[in-house]
Amino acid sequence: MKHERVQAAFGKALKRFRASLGVSQEQLAERAELHRTYVGDVERGERNISLLNIAKIADALRIKPSKLVREMEKHLEKTLR
Amino acid sequence: MKHERVQAAFGKALKRFRASLGVSQEQLAERAELHRTYVGDVERGERNISLLNIAKIADALRIKPSKLVREMEKHLEKTLR
Repeated sequence: MKHERVQAAFGKALKRFRASLGVSQEQLAERAELHRTYVGDVERGERNISLLNIAKIADALRIKPSKLVREMEKHLEKTLR
Repeated sequence: MKHERVQAAFGKALKRFRASLGVSQEQLAERAELHRTYVGDVERGERNISLLNIAKIADALRIKPSKLVREMEKHLEKTLR
């Protein structure tokens, strides 16, 4: 796995789930008790998010953390084709 | 999900996979280019590991990051019963 692509792929996965659930970045940030700018940075692949923040975001979206990580892996596989 | 339990559950998941694959903490640290003490800290639930380090560790164990995260979730579900 190309480590430099991991953040970008996670960001895309997060953005996809958040948008498909009809949740704004601001709503997600509030529910997860994170800064709105931080959520935006993560979605743009600019942050190396921690496990606890992955868990907070997954909880706020009412999905399992592994669902976000599997979606990240799908994005990584796509970019490696 | 109880956030304070997340680190401990991830540590147990990591320890389980590492041991089942017959890899020592030292070998894992070397392969993942992390410090041996850091790997020990993560296994004891004392570190809030980042996404990139989860990916490095998964690569070093030749498993998908989502496998580690799913195993973490199993440990969390157990402690909530």
